[in-house]
Amino acid sequence: MTTEDADELDRVVADVRERIDPSSAERARLADAAAALTGRVEEALADRSVTGDVVQVGSTARGTWLAGDRDIDLFVRFPESLSREELERYGLEIGREVLPDGHEEFAEHPYVKGEYDGFDVDLVPCYDVPAATDIQSAVDRTPFHNAYLLDRLDDSLAADVRVFKRFLKGIGAYGSDLRTKGFSGYLAELLVLEYGGFESLVEAAADWHPPVEHDPESHGSRSFSDPLVVIDPTDPVRNVAAVLSAENVARLQHYARELLDDPREELFFPPARTPMTAEAVAAHLDRRGTVPVALVFDAPAVVEDQLYPQLEKSLDGVVSELDRRGFEPLRATTFASESGEERDAPFDRAVVFVELSVATLPTIQRHDGPPVYVRQHATGFFEKYADAGADVYGPFLDGDRYVVERDREFTTARAFLESDALFDVALGAQVQAQLEESYTVLVGDEVLSLADEFGTDLRAYFEPRP
Amino acid sequence: MTTEDADELDRVVADVRERIDPSSAERARLADAAAALTGRVEEALADRSVTGDVVQVGSTARGTWLAGDRDIDLFVRFPESLSREELERYGLEIGREVLPDGHEEFAEHPYVKGEYDGFDVDLVPCYDVPAATDIQSAVDRTPFHNAYLLDRLDDSLAADVRVFKRFLKGIGAYGSDLRTKGFSGYLAELLVLEYGGFESLVEAAADWHPPVEHDPESHGSRSFSDPLVVIDPTDPVRNVAAVLSAENVARLQHYARELLDDPREELFFPPARTPMTAEAVAAHLDRRGTVPVALVFDAPAVVEDQLYPQLEKSLDGVVSELDRRGFEPLRATTFASESGEERDAPFDRAVVFVELSVATLPTIQRHDGPPVYVRQHATGFFEKYADAGADVYGPFLDGDRYVVERDREFTTARAFLESDALFDVALGAQVQAQLEESYTVLVGDEVLSLADEFGTDLRAYFEPRP
Repeated sequence: MTTEDADELDRVVADVRERIDPSSAERARLADAAAALTGRVEEALADRSVTGDVVQVGSTARGTWLAGDRDIDLFVRFPESLSREELERYGLEIGREVLPDGHEEFAEHPYVKGEYDGFDVDLVPCYDVPAATDIQSAVDRTPFHNAYLLDRLDDSLAADVRVFKRFLKGIGAYGSDLRTKGFSGYLAELLVLEYGGFESLVEAAADWHPPVEHDPESHGSRSFSDPLVVIDPTDPVRNVAAVLSAENVARLQHYARELLDDPREELFFPPARTPMTAEAVAAHLDRRGTVPVALVFDAPAVVEDQLYPQLEKSLDGVVSELDRRGFEPLRATTFASESGEERDAPFDRAVVFVELSVATLPTIQRHDGPPVYVRQHATGFFEKYADAGADVYGPFLDGDRYVVERDREFTTARAFLESDALFDVALGAQVQAQLEESYTVLVGDEVLSLADEFGTDLRAYFEPRP
Repeated sequence: MTTEDADELDRVVADVRERIDPSSAERARLADAAAALTGRVEEALADRSVTGDVVQVGSTARGTWLAGDRDIDLFVRFPESLSREELERYGLEIGREVLPDGHEEFAEHPYVKGEYDGFDVDLVPCYDVPAATDIQSAVDRTPFHNAYLLDRLDDSLAADVRVFKRFLKGIGAYGSDLRTKGFSGYLAELLVLEYGGFESLVEAAADWHPPVEHDPESHGSRSFSDPLVVIDPTDPVRNVAAVLSAENVARLQHYARELLDDPREELFFPPARTPMTAEAVAAHLDRRGTVPVALVFDAPAVVEDQLYPQLEKSLDGVVSELDRRGFEPLRATTFASESGEERDAPFDRAVVFVELSVATLPTIQRHDGPPVYVRQHATGFFEKYADAGADVYGPFLDGDRYVVERDREFTTARAFLESDALFDVALGAQVQAQLEESYTVLVGDEVLSLADEFGTDLRAYFEPRP
């Protein structure tokens, strides 16, 4: 990149930092809240016949949070001699004492989540193990990540972490949840550390040729087949980027090049996409000449990280089967509408959406039999179909095989989707249970009714971007 | 097979022989004609300053012809010292003298064809070479085949050859022309010889597991990849069954089993198939729910052995391209109507007929770009399509690649078949020349107009049998 472009990139980064760097007031308020909470936890520990300490972790512990983030994560470390039951009991007791208005959540243990002075606080019990490789549950690893990064991220690198995170959010690649399959905060921080800053990271990423492998502590002891491998500095057998999809690696590469080629703040803060109207969807379908089909059903009452893998498995199954049956899927997606009920049933309705190239297939389809020279098998095939009479064309010969043309099971995608054959497809377990109860099939213009609830998803589908 | 079935098969063969064995009167008349012609040739040779002899060849020389066949083949053998020009000159001179009303035809040499006492006579000059492996042209081999078979076929085997030939004719597998790709007379005779008779041949064929290899003189000196290999007893590097298709091997196996399972004369003399009416074709198309398309054009003025390979090459090219373009061919065939002008332009019109599963495709089609990490190539692709604006969907990402959806070239088979893109397909040379001049595309019910001229071909297509 030219000096002019580099200057322009610096200006863009400076403008972005104006918007994302926490103010000193915000920092102070957060530090005060964290100190007060830490004090409360220490008092609660002192009141009990158990040793333990409290450690603040997460981005707000390391100065890598973006202005406005309100998460304080406090981990209470107990001795390994405690049983799991004791750890959970102490954890919840202390949590309820420190956050009297909080509620229980569940990750690998139960823990307490609550509010304090406007901040969202997680109070998580864990074991105080000697090393990250000795962990008893995944949460025990977090204090090691925290310590590793605190030792290495100075103010300048922390600022670059914030810029990189904002960039990842802007391009839609931030988050290691199973819907996004993007970059976790920890991975973002390790990458900025590895490349020595945001701009050098972006320049490197633009040129990546996966698999890209980093092992900051040079202690990796197994191999991975992922496109990006960053060996956890606290655990030689763990790839921090295990969840990251090849598509999000490509996405970072694409937008890294865009940023270097034409630096602009819009990449960090893209304009929100408005929902697409039914009329606009209709115009796209008309332009495309395709046949859209949708399965619409009540979303199972599970969290996002359980719902999306099931929706994707179901989508893959349906698409493969429609393909196998000759309907030539062109593109497909799945979406779910949020219910607003974050804790129990966060999603309202879910959709498996497939755009087909073929609306109707012939009544008959070709069915190849065995080679004629496999006498017993061939004779069985011939006799079976010779007796089928006018329902079947043939058997006749094509090369050395018998062939018949017999009735196709489904001549339209609707007929298949509305039949029990749908349940021969590998579906997500709870999606399958829901479909067994009830679902609707929409075909052609019927899908326009989805625009009311899924307009933003339809915009993303019909106006796709990298 | 049971004794009862074997008796039944014997009865059927006896009935067939009643119909195909030449009567003694026919034999006598043919012998007289052959002797008279031989005498004339010998006189013509004596009148000239060239040595040579005449040998009767072919089925009428060996007693393996079917009653009513009227072909007498006489080969005039000249010394190898003659130049090709001299051989041709003598051959034609003698031919014209012996058959004054005859005309010239052309195989590897020119030769004279004419009529004598109601028989069709071929008078073919060839070289008198010491062995079949020394031949200068393919016709020189024929007298060796003739001598080999004459030495080995007694009356009983000759009768079985006639039965086997009739069987092959009945099932549609007789003839080594490039339309049929079936069993030549010589191959049929060698197989009867090899298996010691018709019934043992049929029993063996029912159990064949190709490749089936025979080498009657145990002198084969190369290998073949054909389903049936019969090394020419007069030439160790030639497979007599080289032209035979895998389908005709399968056909013989199928009907051999039918004959053994339920012996019946009908297999030797199947009822003629009547032409299919346009109404019946329409009923089939309606039943099948397919989309028929046809290219109809004047047949190039070439003989069957030149026309059919070209029609098949053209058919393969068109079918592959329709498949590649997403129209999902289900089955296809080609046919040509005979003009009655056997010598100059034996065929009138020709048809490439393809039955498709898909009538119309979407306006757009998916086009995969390079992986994003191939930076230069990927950037070129992205920029090309990013600038295409509303005409193109994307580029977007699918996994690690860029993808666009852009306009499909042809959304219907008719549009493709009527375009110049048809000529990018590998077509037979003279078919291509004819299509460049003129052709008609028929789609859907338009193909019903073919029934007038190609009703029998349409019957075979829509009521296919092994």
